[in-house]
Amino acid sequence: MLKINGERLWASLMAMAEVGATVRGGSCRLALSAEDKAGRELFSHWCKAADLTLSVDAIGNLFARRAGTDSDAAPVMMGSHLDTQPEGGRFDGVYGVLAGLEVIRSLNDHGIQTRKPLEIAVWTNEEGARFTPAMLGSAVFTGTLALDKALATADADGISVAEALRTTGYTGERPLGGAVDAYFEAHIEQGPILEDNAKSIGVVTGGQAIRWLDVRVEGMAAHAGTTPMPLRKDALYGAAQMIQALENLAADFAPEGLTTVGELSIAKSSRNTIPGLLNFTVDLRHHRDADIEAMEQHVRARLQAIAEKRGLTVTISPHWVSPATPFDADCVACVQASVDALGYSQQRIVSGAGHDAIHLARYCPTAMVFIPCVGGLSHNEAEDVLPEDVRQGTDVLLNAVLKRAGHVQ
Amino acid sequence: MLKINGERLWASLMAMAEVGATVRGGSCRLALSAEDKAGRELFSHWCKAADLTLSVDAIGNLFARRAGTDSDAAPVMMGSHLDTQPEGGRFDGVYGVLAGLEVIRSLNDHGIQTRKPLEIAVWTNEEGARFTPAMLGSAVFTGTLALDKALATADADGISVAEALRTTGYTGERPLGGAVDAYFEAHIEQGPILEDNAKSIGVVTGGQAIRWLDVRVEGMAAHAGTTPMPLRKDALYGAAQMIQALENLAADFAPEGLTTVGELSIAKSSRNTIPGLLNFTVDLRHHRDADIEAMEQHVRARLQAIAEKRGLTVTISPHWVSPATPFDADCVACVQASVDALGYSQQRIVSGAGHDAIHLARYCPTAMVFIPCVGGLSHNEAEDVLPEDVRQGTDVLLNAVLKRAGHVQ
Repeated sequence: MLKINGERLWASLMAMAEVGATVRGGSCRLALSAEDKAGRELFSHWCKAADLTLSVDAIGNLFARRAGTDSDAAPVMMGSHLDTQPEGGRFDGVYGVLAGLEVIRSLNDHGIQTRKPLEIAVWTNEEGARFTPAMLGSAVFTGTLALDKALATADADGISVAEALRTTGYTGERPLGGAVDAYFEAHIEQGPILEDNAKSIGVVTGGQAIRWLDVRVEGMAAHAGTTPMPLRKDALYGAAQMIQALENLAADFAPEGLTTVGELSIAKSSRNTIPGLLNFTVDLRHHRDADIEAMEQHVRARLQAIAEKRGLTVTISPHWVSPATPFDADCVACVQASVDALGYSQQRIVSGAGHDAIHLARYCPTAMVFIPCVGGLSHNEAEDVLPEDVRQGTDVLLNAVLKRAGHVQ
Repeated sequence: MLKINGERLWASLMAMAEVGATVRGGSCRLALSAEDKAGRELFSHWCKAADLTLSVDAIGNLFARRAGTDSDAAPVMMGSHLDTQPEGGRFDGVYGVLAGLEVIRSLNDHGIQTRKPLEIAVWTNEEGARFTPAMLGSAVFTGTLALDKALATADADGISVAEALRTTGYTGERPLGGAVDAYFEAHIEQGPILEDNAKSIGVVTGGQAIRWLDVRVEGMAAHAGTTPMPLRKDALYGAAQMIQALENLAADFAPEGLTTVGELSIAKSSRNTIPGLLNFTVDLRHHRDADIEAMEQHVRARLQAIAEKRGLTVTISPHWVSPATPFDADCVACVQASVDALGYSQQRIVSGAGHDAIHLARYCPTAMVFIPCVGGLSHNEAEDVLPEDVRQGTDVLLNAVLKRAGHVQ
């Protein structure tokens, strides 16, 4: 099996991390900032050295192309993003871009041609830390978000995406979208599953379904000292029981079902006042749409029953829905065949976080390769990976891409 | 049995409510404001008409004295406060002061002398809405709070109590404290118990014990989409179980035990982040010190057990402790004998709210008379009472005071 050069890839990762390096070992390259521009320029420099052809589209997505032997074929694309969180790590996004570059460098080393062209994509503003929404560049590329709307989006200082693209020189001529044969994204897992199971490779089968609900619980505010327990309508005691029910619901839908209450706020709260009104959020996740629908129905029924028994009023409003995103069976099979042939420790996994690949999956055949990150930690300057996992993940990417693109000898 | 003039008392209550009247039917007489001064002046005018002698002490407590036949005897005192919440009701505090006045007016009507002198006290800044702490005047009178410290206390605009006393002309010469034979305070219940039990009179046997705890729960913040349930250390799921345990604890100590979680805040909360750190407050109440101590021990043990089982860290810190305040047996017996003789519907009750009487009870023999308020509502412009309850409560006060002060005919 063909393998990549792990030392070269690691050196590139470390070099990129120096662009916008933070004191505590992370990187800060906010989308379309001077640091992000510098990161893109370093990448472009490496691409030119690898004989790749660069192009930029109207939303600043940057592409590096290696021709195939079939000039009519649509490209097999790899990629991810180079922008980071304000206190970001060295691997989130960067790994997928530089793994793509390393795949091509390795093909160059071995003088291997592919039938289909290869492209590396650097998507604009994946993190969403500077401009909302996250995954903005891939959303525009795939037609999920209108270009005009994306260009008009402004950061906290009122600087629009359009202005930031002009400032950094990343307003390009390449037409948006276009035919893509397949998209492969390598990424750190950003969760603890692979590490917990001692696996080096996650064969990602898709993105999970997500539903966000807003819950409002209304009881009756009253004096904590003068109101007997049986006469209370305590919104928080009710909510505590509801939140316990949500935890139990995840157990009923284990292991795929996840439930999280991330925010809770009591209106006009005071230490000696019985809470009369509060709001909390619910984040539901599941691999399958049918199951997340069942979860939501259970949430509604259980919370309603608790409220009724306590004389409370509960209102449950949908906030956001994202259906499950199964990846392409053939692309996933390419990754699976690659890791099987390489003999690396692996498991199937569903992506819990958002990625550009989630947009691409609704546009063209798509798959992802995960590698573990230490402690599951991400969006943190302490984000870390094992060099051996970095190498193995890129070997898997190389052979999956080669299979899809056609190895011409 | 001697009875008061219910129509006259009601008319006085309604006249006082016009001082600082709010649009929605309440009153706003913040402590030592122009409105509070006007309320005190109206009261003083009525007192002079009733041949009472006025005096003011250094913290602005206002006293109206009716001489007894025994000039050496310490006075039997009635009273409460005339200051209100910013959107206060017509009866909280005012009832106790004007009920005292009506008792003396009725004695005047019937030409009844008492052996001991009678005094009506108007305590300064009971509400605590303008100056902290609440019950400031009675705290200084009873030596619980130093005069200097109380005078230096400033409101939100930086105006000190000393300055407000000078502005309103309520810095008086009467020595602080002094002998008090007994203190009787009539008050609305500020809770729903009497109404719920269809009783007109509460014979108050004391103030309950209060303990305030601060609870901090620490788990591990993590991504809501990528972290499997078994690998989570969710501070809120832990806290929900703890809060349920607190509700169950009240049931174990029913009916006297009360538990309330009034405030809860999640640190760096976000809809799709598992809560890693949160704080909540606990308000424990019980009639007896031994029981509230047992409650606190149970809280500590149960919360600790829940935290350990979930891999969370819980820290429980005492925030404030107020022991139970039993009222004087003889004074309570005077109230009980009075209501028994009058034949009004009644029950024994423990005060759940703070009152000047709680300070006085640690200084001199003390008791209270409660009447119901509609829906238990107080600290609200919609605060309301039934005129019949107002009348009956004052009849009870009259005969209790007469018993204590000695009816000379």
